[in-house]
Amino acid sequence: MYLTEKFAKLVTGTRYVDIPAAARAKAKECILDCLGCAIAGSAEPISAPVGRYLDAVGGHAQSTLIGIGGKTSVTNAALANGVFGHVLDYDDTNQIFIGHGSVVIVPAIFALAEKLGSSGEDIITAYMLGTEVQWKLGEALVACGDHYSKGWHSTCTIGAFGATASAAKLTGLTAEQTAYAFGIAASEAGGFQEQFGTHCKAFHAGRANEIGVRAALLAKGGFTSAKSAFEGNVGFLKLVADKHDLSKIDNFGAPWGILEKTFGRGINLKAHPVCASALGAVEGMQSLMQKHGIGADDVERIECGVRPHSLNILMYHAPKTGLEAKFSAEYWPAITLLRGRLGLREITDDVVAQPAVQALMRKVKVYPDPTVELATARVNIKVTLKDGRSFSEGYYPAKGATDNPLTQAELVEKFNECAQWGGVPPEKARRAVDVLLDLERMGRPDELMNSLTA
Amino acid sequence: MYLTEKFAKLVTGTRYVDIPAAARAKAKECILDCLGCAIAGSAEPISAPVGRYLDAVGGHAQSTLIGIGGKTSVTNAALANGVFGHVLDYDDTNQIFIGHGSVVIVPAIFALAEKLGSSGEDIITAYMLGTEVQWKLGEALVACGDHYSKGWHSTCTIGAFGATASAAKLTGLTAEQTAYAFGIAASEAGGFQEQFGTHCKAFHAGRANEIGVRAALLAKGGFTSAKSAFEGNVGFLKLVADKHDLSKIDNFGAPWGILEKTFGRGINLKAHPVCASALGAVEGMQSLMQKHGIGADDVERIECGVRPHSLNILMYHAPKTGLEAKFSAEYWPAITLLRGRLGLREITDDVVAQPAVQALMRKVKVYPDPTVELATARVNIKVTLKDGRSFSEGYYPAKGATDNPLTQAELVEKFNECAQWGGVPPEKARRAVDVLLDLERMGRPDELMNSLTA
Repeated sequence: MYLTEKFAKLVTGTRYVDIPAAARAKAKECILDCLGCAIAGSAEPISAPVGRYLDAVGGHAQSTLIGIGGKTSVTNAALANGVFGHVLDYDDTNQIFIGHGSVVIVPAIFALAEKLGSSGEDIITAYMLGTEVQWKLGEALVACGDHYSKGWHSTCTIGAFGATASAAKLTGLTAEQTAYAFGIAASEAGGFQEQFGTHCKAFHAGRANEIGVRAALLAKGGFTSAKSAFEGNVGFLKLVADKHDLSKIDNFGAPWGILEKTFGRGINLKAHPVCASALGAVEGMQSLMQKHGIGADDVERIECGVRPHSLNILMYHAPKTGLEAKFSAEYWPAITLLRGRLGLREITDDVVAQPAVQALMRKVKVYPDPTVELATARVNIKVTLKDGRSFSEGYYPAKGATDNPLTQAELVEKFNECAQWGGVPPEKARRAVDVLLDLERMGRPDELMNSLTA
Repeated sequence: MYLTEKFAKLVTGTRYVDIPAAARAKAKECILDCLGCAIAGSAEPISAPVGRYLDAVGGHAQSTLIGIGGKTSVTNAALANGVFGHVLDYDDTNQIFIGHGSVVIVPAIFALAEKLGSSGEDIITAYMLGTEVQWKLGEALVACGDHYSKGWHSTCTIGAFGATASAAKLTGLTAEQTAYAFGIAASEAGGFQEQFGTHCKAFHAGRANEIGVRAALLAKGGFTSAKSAFEGNVGFLKLVADKHDLSKIDNFGAPWGILEKTFGRGINLKAHPVCASALGAVEGMQSLMQKHGIGADDVERIECGVRPHSLNILMYHAPKTGLEAKFSAEYWPAITLLRGRLGLREITDDVVAQPAVQALMRKVKVYPDPTVELATARVNIKVTLKDGRSFSEGYYPAKGATDNPLTQAELVEKFNECAQWGGVPPEKARRAVDVLLDLERMGRPDELMNSLTA
């Protein structure tokens, strides 16, 4: 049986009742979090060129543009909302495929659900299938392969197949159509890491959603592809990884990946809108501040030890813009000292450029700490005060990570911060939270989608 | 200077008057031929799922669906007309990138030209820039590299950058926007050979057009990408070829690739709607029939020697359908003997299944002939008659190849065959031919586009 057919069997054979309650609960949290990130991202500058593109091509008014409001075609909405959801780098991550898992399927799911009138149970089921396909491909190609290390941006390449699983399920494809949809998606999947730091990183997330929706629509209409599209001699897998282990793809949902509890394998939500490569620098500083009553004026210097590999990504040692500051472990403890927190308001171009912020950043020294491993992603932080005292903290696990989850109250607080950033009125945000925390009881998503707009 | 910027310089710096008259004349022939193939392809079964997809998503009524009629968005039209243009495998090829060159840019060009009201001169200029980018990338990645042999379908991967060049020129992007457009296209380009023989092969051609148009629209709206998207350490080129030679990319238009005269380097149009891997089998048989008065009833057996590598592709030795017969060198001389020609009417499922055709095919023996090389693509054909006589012919160069071009009358005859196949009334087809053979004098393309529909 070809892999396209194996995935098709998973997708068509899984029902809502097959999903354990703990997995459903986690799925609801990830969906809430992802939609919040998309609302916030819709207020970023990238929405202007995306909007001009959508205006240029048009489409049936089927699915809501999150944050912005108004409807466009289901494929356009999947694309645009995926871009919005990823542009702030505030959305969840999954180290099994070294990718952002929810943002490449949730926009596709809601775009289609709105068009089709899908229920909350349908949505949760589609979400679980999309993430499970990501886990399996991630294990085979990234955890046991070199797909990511070669340079592919797995958020797009593997994400596209997650979106295909979700879209095929919601659309109600037959097993044969679903297999074709995976093959069609393979013909579109691409995207590579050289685009990090440009609009194209978020474009990749949007593309993954669009690819999945289009593959499902084409397959439903009778379009075919090679069932050997993955494993064939001139198929997708050989082109995108020199090393992989396809045996990892068996045993779907046994157990469900979403229930993995270790940092390196489960879903990690973000408590701060910055790169995930040195999680804990913010909370480590907060903890030292609380324990020892430290204020910004007291500090002589800060030393921050991170996993050596992370320094490849944390490349901005004196960031000038908010986007650069997302990849600056000097910035994170500095702004936390000054503001007590690092949310969306603390990482704008204006705030980053403030002289007090820049001055404090110069007191932070980030260094590679060989004692830190991926499995912990610990941050070792040491503050030396002007009075000569010094305090240290090894912060792990990071807030939001699967082994130190955000509480429901913290999740809602983050959602509300995002909603405010995107201009969604508080009463709409409240309604959205109510629906999403009780998603399995939702009938159609129309009212919810309206609640996600300014 | 990054490659995205080099290409941008070519695209923004080239004017219509910079293109030699001989290149313009060849461009017009290729455009005429490609549009004819798209008309014919629009009548194929693949148009049903494509049409269902377009109906599902909608779009502004900007650009005509060739053959079918009606308008859709510029991106949808680029996609659909690209699929139609390639599905019959009747469109031109270019061995430098081992791809189909015109079908991945002409649909994009006309979709945009219709939206923008571009002139014939604009269209010819855009065509020349698209093909020139293909030649340069083809030389670097395929002729001097392993991009195609790894399994990528260069019609899509390299074609997408041709379409980007054409679309950026027509859209009037600045040099910086054009560089970004190439980077955006790199994030979308994909497609691999495992999909041959399925709808996805033509999908790749459609995608290349769509990618180019979208990249230009996004870049025009302010969307950015990495200028190092091609050469970067985790950029497109390293991911899609282990071997390549970027020095081949210098010297754009010096000379223009379209003026190459040898089979292995120039544009080869097709005289028959079949795979290009053993060009000449049809004309070889026609020549023997004419010289010696051979009829189907006279023949005992036919031996057909082709380049050994071609047998990997000519895999149907007893084809049952028209699609299989496109890749059957047994079929081609057999049907030529029976019908005197191999056009669209000679390669339908019905005709292939006829007992007389199947019986005659069993008399054809195709064998690998090590004396045949790619540079000639000769076909050595030997007919032995029931009366014991035998005649041989080594046919080269194949009709339509760059060193044995179709005459203008033959081009028009092929176009009319395609127009009839797609249901375009003869008077419309005549008007289209008149405009296209005199394309540099056309003002806006609206009337032409109407002439290309049933």
